This record gives sequence, C-alpha cells and structure tokens, in this order.
Amino acid sequence: MAEMTATLATTLETLLRQKKFNVIKTVLSTMNPSDIAALLEDEPTAELLILFRLLPKELAADAFVEMDSEVQKNLLAGFNDNELKQIVDELNMDDAVDIVEEMPANLVKRILSQADPDTRRLINEMLKYPDDSAGSLMTTEYVDLSPDMTAEEAIDHIRATGVDSETVNLCYVVDATRRLVGVVSLRTIILAQTGTRIADVMEKNVLSVGTHEDQESVAQTFAKYNFTAMPVVDSEDRLVGIVTVDDVIDVIQEEATEDISKMAAVTPADKPYLRLSVFELWRSRIPWLLILMISATFTGLIITHYENALATYVALTAFIPMLMDTGGNSGSQSTVTIIRSLSLGEISTKDTWKILWKEVRVAVLCGVTLAVVNFAKLMLFDKVGVQVSLVVCLTLIFDVLASKVVGALLPLGSQKVGLDPAVLASPVLTTIVDAVALLIYFGFATKILGIA
Amino acid sequence: MAEMTATLATTLETLLRQKKFNVIKTVLSTMNPSDIAALLEDEPTAELLILFRLLPKELAADAFVEMDSEVQKNLLAGFNDNELKQIVDELNMDDAVDIVEEMPANLVKRILSQADPDTRRLINEMLKYPDDSAGSLMTTEYVDLSPDMTAEEAIDHIRATGVDSETVNLCYVVDATRRLVGVVSLRTIILAQTGTRIADVMEKNVLSVGTHEDQESVAQTFAKYNFTAMPVVDSEDRLVGIVTVDDVIDVIQEEATEDISKMAAVTPADKPYLRLSVFELWRSRIPWLLILMISATFTGLIITHYENALATYVALTAFIPMLMDTGGNSGSQSTVTIIRSLSLGEISTKDTWKILWKEVRVAVLCGVTLAVVNFAKLMLFDKVGVQVSLVVCLTLIFDVLASKVVGALLPLGSQKVGLDPAVLASPVLTTIVDAVALLIYFGFATKILGIA
Repeated sequence: MAEMTATLATTLETLLRQKKFNVIKTVLSTMNPSDIAALLEDEPTAELLILFRLLPKELAADAFVEMDSEVQKNLLAGFNDNELKQIVDELNMDDAVDIVEEMPANLVKRILSQADPDTRRLINEMLKYPDDSAGSLMTTEYVDLSPDMTAEEAIDHIRATGVDSETVNLCYVVDATRRLVGVVSLRTIILAQTGTRIADVMEKNVLSVGTHEDQESVAQTFAKYNFTAMPVVDSEDRLVGIVTVDDVIDVIQEEATEDISKMAAVTPADKPYLRLSVFELWRSRIPWLLILMISATFTGLIITHYENALATYVALTAFIPMLMDTGGNSGSQSTVTIIRSLSLGEISTKDTWKILWKEVRVAVLCGVTLAVVNFAKLMLFDKVGVQVSLVVCLTLIFDVLASKVVGALLPLGSQKVGLDPAVLASPVLTTIVDAVALLIYFGFATKILGIA
Repeated sequence: MAEMTATLATTLETLLRQKKFNVIKTVLSTMNPSDIAALLEDEPTAELLILFRLLPKELAADAFVEMDSEVQKNLLAGFNDNELKQIVDELNMDDAVDIVEEMPANLVKRILSQADPDTRRLINEMLKYPDDSAGSLMTTEYVDLSPDMTAEEAIDHIRATGVDSETVNLCYVVDATRRLVGVVSLRTIILAQTGTRIADVMEKNVLSVGTHEDQESVAQTFAKYNFTAMPVVDSEDRLVGIVTVDDVIDVIQEEATEDISKMAAVTPADKPYLRLSVFELWRSRIPWLLILMISATFTGLIITHYENALATYVALTAFIPMLMDTGGNSGSQSTVTIIRSLSLGEISTKDTWKILWKEVRVAVLCGVTLAVVNFAKLMLFDKVGVQVSLVVCLTLIFDVLASKVVGALLPLGSQKVGLDPAVLASPVLTTIVDAVALLIYFGFATKILGIA
C-alpha cells in the first residue's frame, strides 16, 4: 500500500511536469476519496492546489474531508473566494463543522462569509455543542417525512430532497412541530403497497439521543442495537440531526485509542503516529514521566527508612524488583479490565461492591498460587532459608490483594467523582502499588526476622 | 399467510391429480422463492419431487435454498445425478456451503461428485474459512443485480427478493459468472430516470475483501472508507457474501478489548466482566503473573551480583524503584503507542527504521529532561553529592533510551515474525527493561564511584 502510494505520487509528479492535466484528471477520477487524500497530502502546497483543482467538484469535497487539518488549512488558504464557496457548499454539515473547528480564526471568518446564510446559521449553532457530544457528531442532512404522506409521496419527497442527504436509508417522521414520531426504512417504503400511509408502516418506537449526550454513550447504543443511524433530538424532543454509523466507528476507535494512551501514561494525540513530530511526541509523554519520577521518590524514602534492615539482610534487596513488579502487574490487570468494562458500558460504579468482592477472591487465588510456587522455588533453588521465604511469600499474598483492590478502586473512584477512569488510574497505580509492596515487605521482615 | 398457503396447497394438489402440469408451472413461476419453499415444504416427498421438477431452473435453486434442511435432504436424495448437478450449478456458493454443512456424509459425497471441479474446490475451501476471517464474518443475504437490468426491474427484483436480505441499501452487481462488476445504492436506483440501465449508474470501482482476509483488516478498511457494507469475493473475484457494518463494530470493539487485555498481561475473555467467574478471572490472569514473577528473578540476580556495591553505597538502593519505574513507563509508552498504531493500520513493519529513529530522538529529549530535573532535585533537596547524582542522572538518560528502543522493537519484531504484537510486548517489556535499568545503573556506579 505504502509503496503503491509512492509510485503513484511519482507518476503524478511526472505528469504534472509534462502538464498532462487531462490524464491526471482521468486517473484521479477513478480513485476513492480516501486514497486521493492520502496521495495528495504529501505534495507541496503549490502542486497540491493544482492537483486539487483538477478534481471533479463532489470528489474534491469528499477527498478534502479525508485530509489532515494542516493540509486542509493550506488548501483553504490557497483558494480564492469562489473556490472556497464551492467547497463549503459541497460539504456535509457535520464535516463542515469539524473543519471549521480546526481552522484559525481568519480562515473561519472567510469560510463563514462564503457560506449561504442558512449554512452559516447551522454551523454557528452546531459549534455551540460541547466537544464529543451527539450534537457535535451529528449531520443536519437527513430525510424527514410527514406521517400523512403516502409511500409514493414519500418517494417523490426523497427524490426531490434526498440527493445530498448523507443517508436516506432511514427516513425520520416528524409531526407539524418537528417532534420525532417515527422512523421508516427506504426499503419498507419501497416494499409498501400503493397508497399506504407512512404512519401505518413506520416504526413508532424510535430510540433517539439528546444533543448533549456523550459520544461514547452514543457509540455504545449503536453497538448494542446494530443501528446504522440514530436521530438526535433537542430538549423538546424535536429532530435536529442524525448520527451515522461511519462517524460512530471513528468515535469507537478514537475512544479506544484514548483509553489505551492514558493507560500507558501518554497524553492522547489526535494525529497518526507517523505524523507526530518528535517534539509533539515528547510533549505527550514527558508530563507523566516527570510526575511518576518525582512520586517514585516516596518509594525511595521507604527504602531509606529501612536502610539498616537491608544492611543486615542484604538478600532482601534482591526480592524488591520481583515484589514491585508482581504488585504492579496484578494491579494493572484489575485496573485495565475495569477501565475497559466501564468504557464498553458493561459495568458502572453501582457495581462497585460486586466488583470489589470478585477482585478480592481473584486476588487471594492469584496471591496464594504465586506464593506457593515462589516458596517452592525459594526453598529448592535459592535456598534462602524458611524465614526469608516466608517473608517474601506472605508479602506476595498481601501485595497482590492490596494491588488488586487499589487497582479496582482507582478507576471506579475516578468515575464516581466525574474524572476519566483511564487518566488517573493506570499511571498513578504503579507508584501507589510500589509503596504498598515495600511497606508490606518491610512490615513482615520486621516481624518475622526481628529487625527494625 | 398461513391460510393462503393452505388454500394454495389444496389447489396445487387438485391440479396435480388432474395432471395439469402446465397450469402448475405457470402459477409457481409467478411466485417468489420463499413462498414456493413454504408451499412445497409440507408436501409428501413424491409430490414434492414432481412439483419441484416443474420449476424453472433458477427459481428451483432459489426456492431450494429457502427450504428446511430436512426437506432439502429429501429432495437431494430423490434427485438423479443430472438433477443434482443442475441444482448445485445454480446455487450461490455460500448457500451451497451452508447446505453441504447440513447434509449427511453420503449426500455430501454425491453433491461434490456432481459439482464441477471448480465448484467442488470452492465448496471445500469455504468450509475451511478460518475463525476471524471475512469468510466467517460475512452474511449470505444480500441483493445482487445484473448490469442489464433497468432501474425499474431492479426495484422489482429488490421487492421480490429483498425482504429477507440483511441489507438492501447497497446492491451488488454481478455478471453472468457471478463476478463482482459494480455496486449501486438503493437511493441511486430510486433517484434514477425511468429506463436507466443499472450498468450506467453503478459504481464500477468496487472495493471488496477476500474470504480469508483477517477481520481486523476488514474493520480497518471499513473505518478508512466509511462503508456500511462490503462485498466478500472468493479467489476468482466472484461475490460470495457481504460483511455489514454492525458486525464490524463488534469486531472493532472486540479487537480493542483484546489488545488492551494483552497489554495488561491478561488473557482476553469473550464474556463481559460481570459474567466471568472468579475461577475464570484467575485463569486469565495467573499465567502471566507466574511467568513475570519467575522472570523477575533475573533482576534479583543482578542485584545480588552487586551486593557489595550496595553495601558500600546504601544510598544507591533507594533509587532502584525510581529507575525501574521510569524505564518501565518510558518503554510502555512506546510499546503501547506502536501496538495501537499497528492495530489501526497506521504503521507497518516496513516503517521500522523511521519509527526507531523517531523513538531515539524522543527518548533523548525525554531522558535529558528527566535527568536535568532530577539532578536539580538531587542537588537541592536530597543533597546526595555530585557523584551519586551523576550516576543516577546518566542512568536515567540511557535507561529511557534503551527502554524506548526495546519498547519500539518488541511489538515490531513480534509482528515481523508473525506473532501478535500485543501478546508478547507489554508483559515481557517490564522484565527486560528492569534488568537493563539495573545493568546501566551498576555500570555507571562502578565507573564513577569506583566500586565493584
């Protein structure tokens, strides 16, 4: 794929030098918008503008939407007012809003001045919805029918208005006050007998989402019901837009990537890895590294406090990494499982006690298993003596228990107080669990080996 | 419907007794395959065979597919070899496979012996679709049109066959050999002028997936091109099924959950958290905990080896947790970012050198930042002396560098040799990075503090 793009890019540049614009036009017209976007993105702005102008109008708009916002900015800046108007007119409303959100103020002003008044009003309205809400995700281009239409009238209405609509496969039925009263598929309308009223074939039980509903919960609803589109209503139950499944897929991938990044102590980025500069990568990684480095000082303080014990039993030092790692691994197993289940809507903070009780039992099972295996290993291979083995293995059991409880409570607690479970949980876990492991370890060492 | 079928069945039996075969033929030819199947299924086998033989060839095959597998078995058993061959030739490949899967061995043998070698090979192939392939994900219910149909004929065809189809919003156009030649949306057909040929409005540039393509890469294609359905073709480019977006959403969530689980050293489960028993949770978590506990022994061995150095400079022990954690965090930032980018198809193993060079520069930036901050902290607050500070800070720089390089290479290497990048990378990383941190630490300590 990557090589094919490179080959095509070379071909394109050669054709451009030879000014064979018609050939370029023909070649680009056979391609898919996403592929055109990928191909053109790497061209210098001057060439990019020439190539872009060779695209048929609709294909140009579709390819434009797929491009990186940096490239979009360069293109828009290079357009004259007429070109700007053409592209804005051709864009779906939700794409237009996404683009406007990314552009610098002077470009936004130019875009809005070129849009017709209706579009301008809609864009301004949609810009007011919170980021990551159903309102910011939706498109305002959909087919709405009246319950009193016949199937034939509905088809005529779709013929008249449906060409630009992002989806006409599902048509929403609204009453005179624009209140959502039903949904009907294009297929149902076509299969309906002549003269059938829409009210008689529509599904009256429509699930909808509010404009302010979080996009993650919208995505969960889509996944649960296998929808391809969902209506978005305002606080008075009036239809204001629809969310389509292609945008939901992006949300699902985006949210998963965000969770994964946060779990790994990385600030989520909105660009693909290879497009991130070294500086951007550094900036997304250094904050947590610094915070965690500083907080690991507490772990160091615990060790310093037990310096004498370690000087007496030097063998104890050798087990510190293993105990810390096991605690960290045990805790992150719980944390990550619970963060993911929260994300998928499989559990909620209401299940806290159920989850805790489950984790405690799993922890005891895991801890005892590890302790037994480790005790055997210590006695048979390391031959460190029963007392030290006992200290290490008791620490394992209580360390795994503490780690899994902390690992379960951190994301649930974050969620409870309205914080993102992923952002605090995983990175902070290591520090807490390290400290806990050492405190348990030195606690048993003091008791069993009689040192202080 | 049920009474109508009963009435029709009586009529049919009367006509059959009167041997009015031509009338029966005409009546059946007006009906759609599902209704014919429903009608014929209740007839005794002898009558069933007579009636079935009156059907036009294609309609016979379509009706056959709709029948209960018990009825199919009786029909197939009653066919002579020639009839068997005709029906097998007429069946869609996926239907043929579904049927073959339901039939007893002796019938399967007869069916395969009558099928032409190509068909036989394909049936055998489809029976072997791996789990998680497009072939096992696809549905066999879709609308296929011929390029020579007019828009009106297409709508009639959809009316006749589309009721059961999982999606009729996208219709696939196949030529006489079932080769995929185009795709057309129901919307386009409806919006088309009277008399328009499908060939003239269909999109000829259809993206399809092969039956053996991995479901993760199918999902990537859906996400990239914003599809709601995709055709699945066999190795000869013949349409055998479609994958719909609702199944793809499930795949995307499943794959993300799997990656997240593996990163946290948990064997992925196929049930929601609350449905997993304590024992199942234990079983999914204990293997990696055991492996990692045992492998942490190596880290212990390194510490044991430098026991004397630690005894001389007890202060050095206090920095071990911080250095190990920072290495672990740095490495997992890289590993997790790269695993996710691989999953999303944003990078591939071909980008290894590009990625490595990027990670090296990010690592140096991160390492130097951490070292500078830590040096200031050590000199101002901890007052451990320049030499120890130097050891700690130099270790930080080289540790972060090593961790990020290992963190980048582990998933890329796993991918290269055909292993799942997520399964090895994250869990193994900690152990490697811990050992590397200690080796670098004691290396600098030996050189700068002059201990051995």
